[in-house]
Formats: sequence, structure tokens, C-alpha cells
Amino acid sequence: MRVGIVGGGQLARMMAEEASALGIEIVLLAEAETDGAVAFVHEVRYGSAHDPVALRALAEEVDVVTFDHELVNLEALHELENQGHRIFPSPEALLFAVDKAAMRRLCTTHDLPAPAFVLLSPGDVVDINELGVTLGWPLVLKAARGGYDGRGVFIVEDAAGADQVIKDLFAAGISVVAEERASILRELAALVVRRPSGELLAWPAMETAQVDGVCREVLLPGTVEPAIAAQALEVARSVAEAIGLVGVMAVELFETPEGIVVNELALRPHNSGHWTQDGAITSQFANHLRAVLDLPLGRTEMTTPAVASVNVFGGPEGSEPLLAGLNDALRVPGAQIHLYGKATRPMRKLGHVNLTGEDASLVRRLAWEAAIALGTPLPSEIEEHIR
Amino acid sequence: MRVGIVGGGQLARMMAEEASALGIEIVLLAEAETDGAVAFVHEVRYGSAHDPVALRALAEEVDVVTFDHELVNLEALHELENQGHRIFPSPEALLFAVDKAAMRRLCTTHDLPAPAFVLLSPGDVVDINELGVTLGWPLVLKAARGGYDGRGVFIVEDAAGADQVIKDLFAAGISVVAEERASILRELAALVVRRPSGELLAWPAMETAQVDGVCREVLLPGTVEPAIAAQALEVARSVAEAIGLVGVMAVELFETPEGIVVNELALRPHNSGHWTQDGAITSQFANHLRAVLDLPLGRTEMTTPAVASVNVFGGPEGSEPLLAGLNDALRVPGAQIHLYGKATRPMRKLGHVNLTGEDASLVRRLAWEAAIALGTPLPSEIEEHIR
Repeated sequence: MRVGIVGGGQLARMMAEEASALGIEIVLLAEAETDGAVAFVHEVRYGSAHDPVALRALAEEVDVVTFDHELVNLEALHELENQGHRIFPSPEALLFAVDKAAMRRLCTTHDLPAPAFVLLSPGDVVDINELGVTLGWPLVLKAARGGYDGRGVFIVEDAAGADQVIKDLFAAGISVVAEERASILRELAALVVRRPSGELLAWPAMETAQVDGVCREVLLPGTVEPAIAAQALEVARSVAEAIGLVGVMAVELFETPEGIVVNELALRPHNSGHWTQDGAITSQFANHLRAVLDLPLGRTEMTTPAVASVNVFGGPEGSEPLLAGLNDALRVPGAQIHLYGKATRPMRKLGHVNLTGEDASLVRRLAWEAAIALGTPLPSEIEEHIR
Repeated sequence: MRVGIVGGGQLARMMAEEASALGIEIVLLAEAETDGAVAFVHEVRYGSAHDPVALRALAEEVDVVTFDHELVNLEALHELENQGHRIFPSPEALLFAVDKAAMRRLCTTHDLPAPAFVLLSPGDVVDINELGVTLGWPLVLKAARGGYDGRGVFIVEDAAGADQVIKDLFAAGISVVAEERASILRELAALVVRRPSGELLAWPAMETAQVDGVCREVLLPGTVEPAIAAQALEVARSVAEAIGLVGVMAVELFETPEGIVVNELALRPHNSGHWTQDGAITSQFANHLRAVLDLPLGRTEMTTPAVASVNVFGGPEGSEPLLAGLNDALRVPGAQIHLYGKATRPMRKLGHVNLTGEDASLVRRLAWEAAIALGTPLPSEIEEHIR
């Protein structure tokens, strides 16, 4: 069994860790030898995820192609799929992760909960004032393609601000999703996995904490009520069926006073699911590989009552190197440290710490203790909860 | 942090899985591209573990050298150590795993429980009848070096049989350890890890089942009484201190009517400790890497009340290929399958299945179910316990 992975980042690296146990050979399409996954894969090809020639060469030497990220040439993949290569998730499904306008249309056609939105394409004549009436001020403008981790998302206060953002994006040829600004009570994520034969499993719903658009921690069970958690999983299951998902998918959701709404989709193992490496019977990386190979999926239950997963980020300019704090981090009882093989840089995501146990506030505090030892800045929004 | 591993087998492969998470780079000294670990390591050098030039080249490009197996050039390693390279475990300690005569002398000097034994070296004039009087018939003859998994161990019924084995081994220049044949009630193993700074941790004691000298399953807690388990761990701790262990060590023990006795030592992650990948907070592979790098060790407690680990072996000539049964094996609820990337051959060890849970007899039965699905022959000695 040979799986080709497009992209050599940490998700590919963590897939490789699981591929070993299942006897799966990985062939990696990486950009450079410094990519995180390269050190743990023997068969590495170098090339761009946009290059049809590199994608074809990969598809021809593996049983199935899957992905570390979504910034890929969908047209080239579509052609490979038409010629009989197995590409999972399919380029048709990947579109909903790549293109926020397509994702919002999906919400409408499949009656999925979403904020009020208006789609704007370059060339459209936009009545900004009407937009404000429809969605209210401030409103959210998102580049339909190319953004991630908060980039490409703009909160604009008034017509002048909106006009500028829309003009800039249109000038770059990028469509815009204009949305009402949801009043966010909490953020959740739902993680599911589906294989071609239809088997579909969900991990327990996760509470996530974003600061400045970047995920800082993931908590289970968090403070999410069972009824809300069940709704989140139901939405994710509906999306998976609607798009013919193959592999793992994370649905990021907002909980608002009016209920939950879909924020974004990721059609691959996702930061919000890293806790599954140490806190679930089967990790998202193992189940992603099992799904794309159409093998039976592994159980998704938690192995302990509480799990915390805290992301490790580079400290400010002039900080100690990441490994200077490794001794202290490893001394934190039960800290499961996962590093991505990257050099430190301010607020660059370098790894994560998982911690499992009986006591939710203890595991959260200990996971942060290890992440802080590794140089992670502690945001004040979270400090008040763990001190 | 760069760790060099001498040998490219499954232990190196499973170390690499854990190295990734800790941000450790592995450089592998393998014999051939088909070695199990090669697929998951980028930096692979090819050469023999007996070749001083290959060992030196490896030592020169890493922070520490460690081992997948003990069939290594101890003299060359000793010289590298003298020149300031870090070799863990040290060649002096490795000797006790390589040479059964040295190990038995260690039992004597450190008052460790052992069967009665007599050491015989090529050139010695051996009085076979006196040997029989001292140790009783039948007695056990072991090649001091070169045996494993039951190979190099001979149970002889009488003087004529003993004479033949001793002559053959002497002719090959091999020393012999003659031992009384212990009356084995149960077999146990104790797994410990120690780092240069002295920190020493033990995993819970394990009950192992051997058939024809080959380990077929490992059970925790098994049927071992807490007092016996504590003795086993105490023996392992004593050995670790006595030899200045760095890394993981497994001590295989027999329980006899007179108490426990040391059977063999392995100075590396060991088959009896594979359960730690899924059933302990920290696996033996992660803690081995942490130890040889002198990093703080991870907690060794079990994460569930019961664990079973069953080895996967190739079926008889003409069996289906290993992966023919993968679908069925993955359907066994909770089965954690670990394959070594080897082609099937009768009774070749191809992987193992870990299963964790509340109910010891259920996890044992399910682990065997998955192993059998993968083609493992079920010995009648075990069948009666799981059906």
C-alpha cells in the first residue's frame, strides 16, 4: 500500500508516524528538504503542488494521493481523477475547503446553519450601503480563496472600509464572501472521517480557543453542552455526506445566541484534532490513512475523561531556541510533546502539547505549562483561566 | 538533536515513529534498503554493524549512537567511546546482553537470583558426569554468544547429548553456559529505563508466554501476584544500577517454585514492552530516545487496567500475504496494529497487535482475533485460554 502525500508539512509528518504502524509506504511530494515531513519519509519527490507534471508523477507511483494542505492544483487533480487515479479527498470535495464562496453555497443548498452572507465576484457592481443594511455593521469580508489562520479575513466598520477591501480583492481577481458578524459565544470544531464505502465516524466535539484568528488550545469536553455538541457533529456528518467526503474533515463552528453556524471546512487532519494522537483510541492521522485506502476505520472514543491540546508557538524576536525549554517541558507530568521540526520564529506554529487525565482544569494547566516552557507566549485571554 | 541507530529493523522503525514527535532527527545505519526502518527515515547510511569504519562515520555525524540490536562490534564501539563519542547503552553494558557468560557472572557478583550454572570455555576439559551431578538432568546448554529467540539454547537429556552440543560449540570457538533446567511456573519480564543523570523508571511488570522459545503474547496485569511483580522490578533496577544502564532494558525472568530467576537481558526496547505504545503514558521507544539524549523521562504508568500484546507471525508455507487479512484485523474493535514492513514467511515475526481496556480476558481474546486475521498461527497452549 503506497500513499502519496502532496505537501511536506507537519500534517504529512504526523501521517507518516502512523503509516509506519499500518505498514503503509509514504511517497512525499515536498517543496524543499527542510519541509517538516522530509526527515521521516524515505521516498521524497520535490516539486510544487501546483505543477501538473509533479502531481501526475506522484499519482502514477502510488495507490492513492492525499494532501497535507489544500493549496493545490484542483484542475490537474481533476484530470488525474478522470484518468482513473484515486485522489482522496476528491478535487470536487476539496473545492469546499479551498473556496469559501463554494462552501457558503453548499450551506444554502444543504440547509446547513450559516451566518447571513452575500457573495461578490470581481466585476460585480456592489451596493455597499445595501450590503450594510442586509448584514449590519461591522461586517466580515473574506477572500474566497487563499486565506488561512485568520489571514484573508477582514472585519470592516463602515462603508468606506468595506469599499477599500472589496476593491483590493477584486483588483487581485479574488471573489469575496461578505458575512454578518456573528456574535460568538464559543468556538467549536467537529471532526469526522468517512471512507469510500460509506463508513462514517465522528470524534467527540471539541471546544477551541482562537486568539487573533489563530487556534491556541483545544479542550475536551470543554464547556460545550451535550446537545450543542451533538448538533455540531450532526452538521459535520451532513457536510461529509453532501460532499462525498473521503478522509478526515474538520468543521469549524461558531456558537451564537441563535445557535451554531458553520465557519470553515478543512478536508484533512486538522489542528483541532491533534488531541486524538494521545486522547482517542484512533488518531485522526491513522483514520485519515485508513479512509483514503478504504480500510475499516478505527474507534474514535476518548481514552480519558479530559484532554487538553495546546499549540506551541515561537516567542518574540530574540527568544531562546525552541529546544532550550525541552527539558522543562518534558518534566511536566504526562505532557505529550509533538514538534514539527521547524526553526523558531515569532508566532510560528512549531508543535503542540497533548495532555490527558481525569481533571479537565489540571490537564489544561499542565499542557500550558509545557507549551510555555517551550517558549509559547501565553495570551491574557487564556491566562485568567489557568492561573 | 541527532540520534544514530545501528541496525534498521523494527525497533529502529518504532523509535523513528517517536523521534518525529520529539523533534529528533534519526540517522540510520542499515544493511539494505529493504530493512524495515528505511521507509521512515530520510538519512540512511548503508553498512555493517560490525564494520569499524561505518560505525565511526555514524558516530561522527550524530549526538549519540544507539542500537536496534546487539550484534555489533563492541571493540570498535569501545574505541569510539574512548574518543569521546556518546554510545548508549555503553559497549561495557551491552556486553551483558551479548554474552550470556558475562551476564551470569554479573548475577553472581551482584547477588541476582539465577539458576545454578557452570561456565565452560573452549579448551576447558569438561567432566560431563560431574556437570550432571551439579545441575541435574536434563540440563540447559546455551551458546554464550549469538543466540536469540530460543536459538542457541539446547536442552540435553544425558551425558552423550551434552557432550555433542559442547563439542560443536567449542569447535566454533563459542563458550557455553550450562544451567540447571528451571522448573518454570510462569515467565515474566521487567522493563526499565535509565538516563545518564541517574533517573530510573520502571513500567509495570509483564507476564509473557513463550511457545518453542518464541514470545507469543504479553499480558498486563496477567496472573502475576503484586509481590512477585515487585521482586521482578527490583531485580531489573539492580541490574540497571550495576551496569550503569543508559536507555531501555528488558529483563526476562522465570518464576520457579523457589522464586524468580534472571533468564536474559536485552539492552534496548524489547518485544515484551511493545504494549507500552498503546497502553502506557510513555512508550519504551520514546523513553529510550529520551534516555540516550539525557532528557527527562516520561511517566510509565498504564493508561487502562488491562493490556494484551500479541505477536503477528507468518503462517505456514502457501499462506495468504499478510495484508490479505488487514481488513478483518482492522475491524476488531480497538485493535492497534503495528506492522514492521516485512514480507511474510512461516513463523517470521511481522508485527504485533496491542489492545487495551477494562477486561483482561476480553482484550486478550480481541488481540488474538486481530493477530489470527493477519495469519498468525494460534498455538494450542494459548488456544485453550482464549476460546
